[in-house]
Amino acid sequence: MRWINFTAAGHTAYGIVEGDDVIETAGDIFGKWDRTGRVHKLADVKIEIPVMPRTFYCAGLNYVEHVIEQAAKRGETPNIPTRPEIGYRAQSALIAHGEDVVIPKDATEKVHYEGELVCVFGRTAKHVSEAEALDCIFGYTIGNDVSERTWQKADRTFYRSKNTDTFKPMGPWIDTDVDLDKLHTTVRLNGVARTEFATNHMLFSIQQFIAETSKYVTFHPGDVMWMGTDGVSPDLVHGDLVEIEISGLGVLRNRFVKEGQ
Amino acid sequence: MRWINFTAAGHTAYGIVEGDDVIETAGDIFGKWDRTGRVHKLADVKIEIPVMPRTFYCAGLNYVEHVIEQAAKRGETPNIPTRPEIGYRAQSALIAHGEDVVIPKDATEKVHYEGELVCVFGRTAKHVSEAEALDCIFGYTIGNDVSERTWQKADRTFYRSKNTDTFKPMGPWIDTDVDLDKLHTTVRLNGVARTEFATNHMLFSIQQFIAETSKYVTFHPGDVMWMGTDGVSPDLVHGDLVEIEISGLGVLRNRFVKEGQ
Repeated sequence: MRWINFTAAGHTAYGIVEGDDVIETAGDIFGKWDRTGRVHKLADVKIEIPVMPRTFYCAGLNYVEHVIEQAAKRGETPNIPTRPEIGYRAQSALIAHGEDVVIPKDATEKVHYEGELVCVFGRTAKHVSEAEALDCIFGYTIGNDVSERTWQKADRTFYRSKNTDTFKPMGPWIDTDVDLDKLHTTVRLNGVARTEFATNHMLFSIQQFIAETSKYVTFHPGDVMWMGTDGVSPDLVHGDLVEIEISGLGVLRNRFVKEGQ
Repeated sequence: MRWINFTAAGHTAYGIVEGDDVIETAGDIFGKWDRTGRVHKLADVKIEIPVMPRTFYCAGLNYVEHVIEQAAKRGETPNIPTRPEIGYRAQSALIAHGEDVVIPKDATEKVHYEGELVCVFGRTAKHVSEAEALDCIFGYTIGNDVSERTWQKADRTFYRSKNTDTFKPMGPWIDTDVDLDKLHTTVRLNGVARTEFATNHMLFSIQQFIAETSKYVTFHPGDVMWMGTDGVSPDLVHGDLVEIEISGLGVLRNRFVKEGQ
């Protein structure tokens, strides 16, 4: 099942995507819901952020190739994580599929994409084993963990390098039926594939992150966990169109524009 | 005005504290609201988390004494911030005044309090000058940025050192009329004052943090920004009662208990 958060005629709701149609629903997508009988054309609705998480989790450095390449670019020895330690991002940075990423005026040219698989939690979960971990997941969507590398290196925190407004595109929808091992991520820049990787070939698996994190932290329905990225992005400039496709899940498409241009 | 989020007879609402009474309101405390005519005794209501922020901002290392003392304890040269760079905490770690901080079974003895002033935003704000910054603030409350120092030092992220469930007590209420320069923070452990400081003697002011952060980030009504702490906490053990008083604002009181005891 494919859940979409959308606006039509000034009204925002969740719906189920079936072919070219959106079947509008009412209720709680994580609990009790019903079909309303209203149907919209997918092409006619405004796609919204699929869910506003209460807590926004994000794994860093979770693909070894990415870690090694990033270190090499900095002339450093790769510092490969030895444990699945989750980080956090800011809700205020989220935007929807189709909305523009706005590069601040004072950003350097080192603005990069990061194509990521996103887990959406469907239940309250604490002290979850690896074997039970995937039962906590409602579905999956796609994220672009946009990063300004000069700030990422120079600043003490990620407040602007990764949490600037519009730096967290997420969408276009949430798929509940996904075979993780079959997923393949392709990132296209202006229509040309630039980065490709097997989505589930992570350093630490979704199950390992959930098991370790839930020793200390309670996950809630609607929380999201971004799983990190592989490969290296070129420097992005005003007008660039970035599409992140995860096979079977869809395409997250956002244009990059420079503030004030 | 003193806003309290409370539950009485199974119903959660915002109210205004007047003497020993809570005047129940309805509507949006950041917009249009009205008094309902229902009045409760303050002593009879369950105090809730004053607000669930969309984004949870937190300043680290914002009092020079704290920075120098922490470095000395580690045998290091103090690394004093040169710019106001905001960090983030997890909503899932928040608890209310009066609720227990639960120390995980595998935590070391290095569990510490950090008494902090908390700013609650009242409006949407981007590109705010220092002169306009305080106009974005709805009011102030108190936070305890509980930290497990062994994990803080050993881990790549703060996922458990600062974001373990219950590690972020906040409350008891939001005061809208505060003279920042008159505030004084006192942290009491089992009734004995252990840490005291002038609350507004920060390395970087609230105004500086808002101006710098809002160059990149939009603040929303209900967002909170914790302003850091001064001094050093003793190691806390099962049964300890920590009270953070900020003069004129109130007292945030939480007992620390060890998981499974």
